[in-house]
Formats: sequence, structure tokens, C-alpha cells
Amino acid sequence: MVTQIKRFLLGRPLKSTELGEQKLRKTKALAILSSDALSSVAYGPEQILIVLMTVGAAAFWYSIPIGVGVLILLVALILSYRQIIFAYPHGGGAYVVSKENLGLYPGLIAGGSLLVDYILTVAVSVSAGTDAITSAFPSLHEHNVSIAVTFVILLTILNLRGVTESASILAYPVYLFVLALFILIGVGIYRTMTGAVPPDLHTPVGTPIAGITLFLLLRAFASGSSALTGVEAISNAIPNFKEPSPHNAAKTLMAMGFLLALLFSGIVYLAYDYGITPRAEVTVVSQIAETTFGRHFMYFFIQGTTAMILILAANTGYSAFPLLAVNLAKDKFIPRMFTVRGDRLGYSNGIIMLGILSIVLIIAFGGQTEHLIPLYAVGVFIPFTLSQTGMIFKWVRQKPPGWLPKLLINAAGALICFIITIMFFITKFEQVWPVLIFLPAIIILFHRIRKHYEAVGEQLRLATCEPAMPIEGNVIILPVSGITHVVEHSINYAKSLAADQIIAVYVPFEREDEARFEEKWNKWMPDVRLVTLHSPYRSIIQPLSRFIDSVQRKAVESHYQVTVIIPQFIPKKGWHNFLHNQTSFMIHTHLLFRKDVIVTTVPYHLKK
Amino acid sequence: MVTQIKRFLLGRPLKSTELGEQKLRKTKALAILSSDALSSVAYGPEQILIVLMTVGAAAFWYSIPIGVGVLILLVALILSYRQIIFAYPHGGGAYVVSKENLGLYPGLIAGGSLLVDYILTVAVSVSAGTDAITSAFPSLHEHNVSIAVTFVILLTILNLRGVTESASILAYPVYLFVLALFILIGVGIYRTMTGAVPPDLHTPVGTPIAGITLFLLLRAFASGSSALTGVEAISNAIPNFKEPSPHNAAKTLMAMGFLLALLFSGIVYLAYDYGITPRAEVTVVSQIAETTFGRHFMYFFIQGTTAMILILAANTGYSAFPLLAVNLAKDKFIPRMFTVRGDRLGYSNGIIMLGILSIVLIIAFGGQTEHLIPLYAVGVFIPFTLSQTGMIFKWVRQKPPGWLPKLLINAAGALICFIITIMFFITKFEQVWPVLIFLPAIIILFHRIRKHYEAVGEQLRLATCEPAMPIEGNVIILPVSGITHVVEHSINYAKSLAADQIIAVYVPFEREDEARFEEKWNKWMPDVRLVTLHSPYRSIIQPLSRFIDSVQRKAVESHYQVTVIIPQFIPKKGWHNFLHNQTSFMIHTHLLFRKDVIVTTVPYHLKK
Repeated sequence: MVTQIKRFLLGRPLKSTELGEQKLRKTKALAILSSDALSSVAYGPEQILIVLMTVGAAAFWYSIPIGVGVLILLVALILSYRQIIFAYPHGGGAYVVSKENLGLYPGLIAGGSLLVDYILTVAVSVSAGTDAITSAFPSLHEHNVSIAVTFVILLTILNLRGVTESASILAYPVYLFVLALFILIGVGIYRTMTGAVPPDLHTPVGTPIAGITLFLLLRAFASGSSALTGVEAISNAIPNFKEPSPHNAAKTLMAMGFLLALLFSGIVYLAYDYGITPRAEVTVVSQIAETTFGRHFMYFFIQGTTAMILILAANTGYSAFPLLAVNLAKDKFIPRMFTVRGDRLGYSNGIIMLGILSIVLIIAFGGQTEHLIPLYAVGVFIPFTLSQTGMIFKWVRQKPPGWLPKLLINAAGALICFIITIMFFITKFEQVWPVLIFLPAIIILFHRIRKHYEAVGEQLRLATCEPAMPIEGNVIILPVSGITHVVEHSINYAKSLAADQIIAVYVPFEREDEARFEEKWNKWMPDVRLVTLHSPYRSIIQPLSRFIDSVQRKAVESHYQVTVIIPQFIPKKGWHNFLHNQTSFMIHTHLLFRKDVIVTTVPYHLKK
Repeated sequence: MVTQIKRFLLGRPLKSTELGEQKLRKTKALAILSSDALSSVAYGPEQILIVLMTVGAAAFWYSIPIGVGVLILLVALILSYRQIIFAYPHGGGAYVVSKENLGLYPGLIAGGSLLVDYILTVAVSVSAGTDAITSAFPSLHEHNVSIAVTFVILLTILNLRGVTESASILAYPVYLFVLALFILIGVGIYRTMTGAVPPDLHTPVGTPIAGITLFLLLRAFASGSSALTGVEAISNAIPNFKEPSPHNAAKTLMAMGFLLALLFSGIVYLAYDYGITPRAEVTVVSQIAETTFGRHFMYFFIQGTTAMILILAANTGYSAFPLLAVNLAKDKFIPRMFTVRGDRLGYSNGIIMLGILSIVLIIAFGGQTEHLIPLYAVGVFIPFTLSQTGMIFKWVRQKPPGWLPKLLINAAGALICFIITIMFFITKFEQVWPVLIFLPAIIILFHRIRKHYEAVGEQLRLATCEPAMPIEGNVIILPVSGITHVVEHSINYAKSLAADQIIAVYVPFEREDEARFEEKWNKWMPDVRLVTLHSPYRSIIQPLSRFIDSVQRKAVESHYQVTVIIPQFIPKKGWHNFLHNQTSFMIHTHLLFRKDVIVTTVPYHLKK
């Protein structure tokens, strides 16, 4: 039945050879990988205005030069990542690029912060989308957490089904959102041109403003650049593209950059031109839409697609997290299970882990994940900085034809990202300090995991160790609880193994029982030696464990192998297990983990 | 470390032979076994007044004749149970008495309702005691559930330490409560005698009251008789008494009856004489205490000891539940684990199960367990009725010397209990109907468990079955995941067992891997046959399972036994398990539960 539910939710399992069919075309890839970046348009421009508002509405004209700054950064980032795509056609991403060019630690810092960041992406985006929905239907507001968790579960199932299937479903909302914003910007600019908007709503660009400081402008710039989170997703996900993947990925990246630039500058310009002031309860995009269309169908269309794309932004995390996890797992920094492909060829463990951890975050923060946004932005710009810096080192070291312009592009990207990272630490330290705790913690964990895997490999490798001990003979110990068919079967089996010695062991709690059982045994099975271990404290494992130790000591000297044979009932129905003391199971576990003996389980399947 | 915590909480383990030292002296037994019955005094009289109040305060004089009725019932019950103690010196209780004299079903009805009832006792008493405490300190009120749960955990630990230790700690509050009520009643009656209480506070006994009906009086009687819950505890717990146990138990029972009668009639009389009217926020006992002493030290002493005894009333459940569970488990109606004595010689599984289930009830009802009281009372009077009726049958059948007065005592008891049970069903059906669901459900469950145990016994018994199949030879299947020390060790072991055939099995996910591994294997271990099972769907268990089936089919024909040897890593630290795919463990579980093969685990203990 579990299998049937799984089939229904995820579809039939796919053969490993079907992997090629699961790859993405450019249009689907754009939808699936750019939802995070595009959705940032819904809040990036607003962040700039919020910072400027601390000086006064007259300062809003600064959003134009700051917007230009963000656009320059965007161009630098897109070009940088385009170079990364071609340099690392098997999936670059900040982890691989930083590790190869800057060394292990920068790589781990980049990988660790991205890993955490994708979890934050999912939690923050889904919460934001849920907020947008429940703002429209206030009666749902108290169910915020359950709605957000439901969305995460849906996204997890969608991604477990596989990338192409999720891309097909997710493409519509993304393109609808782009369409909606294009209409909004188009109509808005037309209105501005035709003079439908009064020109006195905004101060002209260049008006001197008292109280404006470089610090404030940098802060506004840093806030606005949060619109650029998500642009690295494509370079992480190159293996998901149809062949030739780097080529297709680069084209998709350029298309995304182009869309993002248009939407971002359109919104920044309209917000300035309309003289929009950020308000707690209504977003800037919503204000622009209302001014442009009134409470018309188009207004609701824009609000609806915005809510959807906020939720879908989480999907970028689902595309990138599992692939980053595979890279880290292949390098043995996180558990090996992340490299296993599931029934539908996705890296299911990564997808499931991402879903679980973001649900934990959503529940822990009660759906109020807004104050995680700065943390999330820092977690993006640290790896941005590292990967751009890595590329600089690469160009300097390899000096391929035409490396200088490439180096300049990456250097510009690295510098801007570095400044933004520093700005976040300076201006929002009270919200981003946890990075300084969890990054070192993650890196220590990575190291311990790697050390463990290396130690295991060392111990298993045939070449490096002495040859295995020869086994000269076998001693079999057989704990018995009575004279039954199960015991008879186990003894027959022990005899068939040509063991040198078979010892049945009985643990009575009372002296009378001891004598009685010995008598019965000697009548029934006189050829098998019985040892009774009286246990005044009513423990079975302790005396048995001591006895095995003493047998073991003698056996080791003569290279004999000790095997403990444990008879075990297997009831017909699961609930019947409650009706049987789980002694066999407990002995099994205890011996395996505590002793160096071989444990054989002889099952006895109950028929009723 | 777990062991150390356990030692600290429970004390050192005790030998089975130390059981005698754990038995109770009479004074301690009285404290430990009568707290439930004595605590009923705190609410029983009030229940009578609440029913009478529906007619008017003038009807309160009826509490005197009704109180006399309850006293008569008490005497009948005490005498009946005294007879049960001597007739069933190894612990009577309604289950044993009903089963022996009335048959299996009445026994199971009695046993089932008592089992549920003890859980209700713990939940209801602890909640009531917690209410009493948080009424005094209203700031604690929101923590009601956590406080109640803490008390249940404390009581559970106390009982796991063993009966004598819990008796020592619990004796003080019980005797302090008795002392406090004696002072209250003494001073109260002295005040009445000396005329300090105005005589016009109550209508004289015998005043005709309009609207009083027999139904109402019976209902008041039934409510008042809830003060008698708990009197059966001693007859259940005879095995806990020092020798001669029936003798000591009978004396303790008489002492308890005497105390209960005095306290009950004192409270009923003073409530009548003071003209107390039940109020929602202040209990009747509290009103009497306030009228007698004012808000004096004695008032708080009475309130404090009342709160304590309400919580300790739960302890009666802890004494009786495990013993009843032992009786039911010996008859195979509930899981055998309830017959096992723990480290401190108590029946720990019963104690722990009672603790867990009452915590579940407290949490499920948010600490508001008052409306479970009628359910609880019915659950007491059903087994009361059955055990008294059982005694009637016993006297009629056995006719020992002087059986007629004994029969009359039990007949009176049975009749009164029966009437009360019926009254509960008629007057409080909306609260007691769940009994009609859960009693049949429990009895069906009892039966299914019994049937399972009988079926198992049948299958295991040597006499009734054909002799075990002879084992003519052994086939060993060895799943391998690579060429490592672990595999080498497992093969050495397989070879030492003189098996007729050893087959190594490798499950590659890709064709290239298959060829590569076969080549490596044939170089390394050419004398062991390797079978590769290509798995396009990346499952290991499915192809392995099919292969084992095919081997098994051939083996059965020639009486060969199939053994699967599974190498298993045992990492040094627990958390390392997360770093290894749990394939070995999953194969082990799958094979044991689904196939009729023997499974041998060869542990490989990692040293780092």
C-alpha cells in the first residue's frame, strides 16, 4: 500500500538510462531556475525606498542612481556567471569554483553558506507567498503556518516527481508573472508619457537633500541588491540542462538577466515617477498597480501572479540544494546518502532534507520569517564574492586568450559583492551575526564527517592492512528460552554447520527453575551441552554477555570464531510484536554493537 | 550514563530473593492503599448536596439519611471485601473473583473496567490535586497540564523505586490529612454542642419538602457513593503485605473503613449543621474549615493536606494496576511483558504504562478531567457488583460453615452496587455512555491477544507437531558492495562453515560497473562464485530478494538450508550511523520478515 501511494504521488520509477529524457529545455529551465531571481523584483525596489525614507520622501530620487548601480552589479554578475558556466560546464556554483581556485576553506565557506541559504530561500519565499495570499483572504491568516507547510510539502512532492515534470507545472505562473509585470510597466510608462501622471509627485533627480550620507546610500544599495539573490542558480544547475548544457545554460542566464534588468528598472522608475511611499500593509508593486489600473482585474492578476512567484521562488532552492549536496557528498563533507538518485532520478534525499528543514524553520518562526531576509542575503553574497574572487585567480593562473577583460568583469563583480557583504555586516549586524556562529559550526561538522569517511576507507582498504585472521574453527552459542520447535530448528542448523562446539545457554531467574530445566534438557537433547546462568537480578543480557566474553577469550587464542545463534519469532501481524518480549531483538542489538561476535538470526515465522 | 541516571532515580537493582523485604507493614499499607478512598471524603459529601440543591437548600436535611445509606453501603462493602480477602489470599480483586465464580466474561468485564479505571483514577486525582494547588496560586493556573504531568512522572518514579520506599514518603501526607480532618470535625462538633453555631442555619431532619422524588434521592445517593471508590484497592494488593498477608490486609481494610466512616459522617453532619451550600469556586470542606477556624493556620493546613491527598489518591492506581495487569497477563489476555519484575522488583511495565496512559489522558483533556468522574465511578461500581455477585455464587456453591450470614452481606453489597450502577446509567447517561463502547472493545482485544498466544503455544509445542525438517546441506549467499576487508572476513567465515555452496552477489546500477567488478572479483577471489544482478531502477533489495527466492526454491527440494551472510559496519560513535547508508540493516529486516532464510550478521567494528 505504501508503494501504491508512492507511485500515485511520484509516478512510476525511472530507469537510470532514462536520465537524458529528464533534462530541461531552455524555456522550462528559465521558468524553473529564475523564479527566485525574478521574484526579488517584488521586494528589491521597495527595500531601497525603505532605507531612503529615513531621510524623507524628497530623497526618493536617489533610487534612480542606486537602481542604476544595482543594474551595473547585475550586468557584472550575469557576465561573471556566464564565464563560470563555460569554465565549469559540469555545474559550477560557488562551492566548486571557490574550492578549485581559492582552496578548501573558501570552498567550504561558500558551500556551507549556500547550503543553509537554500533552506532559508524555501522558508522565506514560501512564507512571503503565504502572507500575500492571506493578506487577500484575512480569514486564513491564523492558518499561515499550516498553509506554508502544505506548500512546502507540495513543492517537495513535485520535485520528487522529477525536474521536467515540475518545470512543466511551474512554467505557467512564472511566465504569467513576467507578462503581468510587462503589462504594468508598459501601461505605466505610457501613462507617464501621455501626462496622465501629475509631474509634481516626485522631486527631480539631482535635488540636493539635507542629511543624506554615503553610508545611507550604500545601505540602500545593499538593500536593493537583495533583488539579485538567485542569479547563481543557473550556474549550479548546468547538469539539469539538455545538451549542449553549458551553451543552453549560458543563453538561459542571459535571458534571465535581461528580464530581471527590465522588470527591476521598470519598477524602480515607476515607483519614483508615481512618488510611491513604502507602506507596511501594501507593497510598492501593489501601489503601482493600483495607481495604474485602479482595483481592476489587472490589479488582481498582478497580485495573484506575485503571490505565486514568491512561492515558486522556493523551487530554485529545490533545484540547487540537491546538486550542491551531491558535490559536497562526493567530496565526503556530508553524508553519502545525498549522492543516491531516487525512483524518479532526482536526488531524493537532498529534496526531502530541504523540505524537512524548511518546514522546521517555518514552524520554529511561526511563519514570520521576514527577519531572516538579511541573513539570507548575506548567505548569498558571501559565496558570490568567493566565486568571483576564485575566477580572478583562475584567469591570472591560466591566462587563456583574452583573459584580461574576463578578469576585469570578475574583479568588478567580486568587488561589488564584497562591498555589499561588508555593508550587511556593518548596517544590519544585529540580524546577520548568526552567520558568524553557524558558518564555523558547519565547517567543523564538514571536517568531522570527512575525517570519519577517510578513517573508514583507510580501515577497509585491502592493500594497507594485514591479511584477515584465519578462522580455524567455530564455537556456536545458542541462547534458549525453553524446549520448543524454534530451539530444535536452531540446534539442527547449528549441527549442520560442522561447528567444533555447540553450547546452549539458559538464563533462569530462580534456582528451582534452573534444576528443573537442566533435567528436562538432558532428557531431550543430551548431546548438546547446556550451560545455565542463574540471574538473580532478572537480567538476561548481562549474564549472557559475560558468558560470551569468557568463551570469546578462549576462542581468540586458538583462532576460533564465536557465533551466537538467536532464534526469533516473526509474528504474522505487525501488532503481534507487542505481545512478545523483544528479548531476541535486544540480544541481537547488544551483541552486534558491543561484542566482536557473529550473530545469526534463525527466524521462526508464526503461521497464525 | 543512562544506567547512572537510572540508578540515581530508582536506586540499586534488587535481587529476586529480596522480595520479602519489599513487603508492606500495616501502617504503611494503610497510607499507600487508602489514599484514594480517604480522599473521596473531600468531594463525596459535596456531590450529595449538589444534587439536593436542584430542589432547594431546604432539602439539605436529606443528606443525613442519604449519608446513613452510604455508611451502610460502606459497611457492606468493607465486610464483603474482608470476606474476599480471606477467600482469595493471593490477591482477589474483582477480576479473579468474578472470573472464578461467574465465568470468563464477567471476569473480563470486571478486569477491563478496572484496568481503564485505574488510569482514570490517576488522571482525575492528579488533575484535581493540581487544581487545588493552582486555586491557591492563580499565577500557576496556565501551567496546570505541565504541573499535573510532572506529578504523574514523580509518582511513576516513586513507584518504580518500589512499594516500601513510596509508602515511606507517602505515609506522612495521608496521616496528616486524617489528622487535619479529625481536628476539623472535633472542633466543629464541639462548636455545635456549645451553641457557637446558630441552630437556624438548617431545616430540621424530617421537614417535608415539595418536589423531592425517589429518583432524585437515588441520584443523590449514587453521587454520594462516589466517596466509596477505592475501597477495593486493598483486596487487590494482598501480595504486597507482609506475612501473614490476608490477616494484615483484613486488619488494614477494617481500619480504613473505620477512618472513612468517621470522616465521611463528620463532614456530612457538619455540612448539614452549618447549612453549607455548595459553591462552584469553594469546596464544601473548605467552607466548613473557614466557618470553623476563619482564615487561620488550621484552614490552610486542611486545604494543603487535601490537595496532597488528592494527588496521592493516584498512588492507589499505581499499587493496583500493575497487580491486576499481572493477573490478566498470566491468563494471556494482555501482553506478557506485564509479568516481568523490574530492577526494584516492582512490575515496572505496568507502572510505566499507567504513567504514560494517564499523561496522555491529562494532555488530551487539557487537565480538565472533571467530567471523567462519572465514567470513573461507573468503572468502579461495575466490578464491585460483579465481585459481590461472584461471592454469592461462591457461598451457594461451597456452603462453608456459617455461609448464610456471609451470603447476606455479599448479597446486600451486590444489590446496592447494582442499583448505583443502574442509577449512573439512568441519571448521567450522557457522561457514562463511553463505557458501552470501550468495554466491548477491550474484551475483543483481550480475546484476540489470548487467541494469538494460544496459537503461538500450539505452534511451538514439540509434542503436537511433526519433527523438524532435517538439514542436508547449506547454501550461503553473501551480498557484497566492494572488495574490502569486511567482505574478505565474511568470505573466510563462510568458508569455515563447511557450506556446500557459497555465492557472492553484487548489485551494480550500471552496465560498465558490472563488467568492471566481475573482472576485479575474478582476479581477487576466483574460487568464490560471483553473481551480478544489474539493477536499472537502483534498488538493491528487490533484485537480491528475487535471487534469494530462486536459490531458495532449489534448496528446499534437496533439504538445503539457505543462509544470507550480511557484513555490517559498526561505527565507533552513534552519530556516524547517519554517514552510512543503512543498506545492511534494511536487507536484514526485509529478509527476516519476508523470507524463510537464516540471516547472519558479520559485524565489522570501525576503530576510528
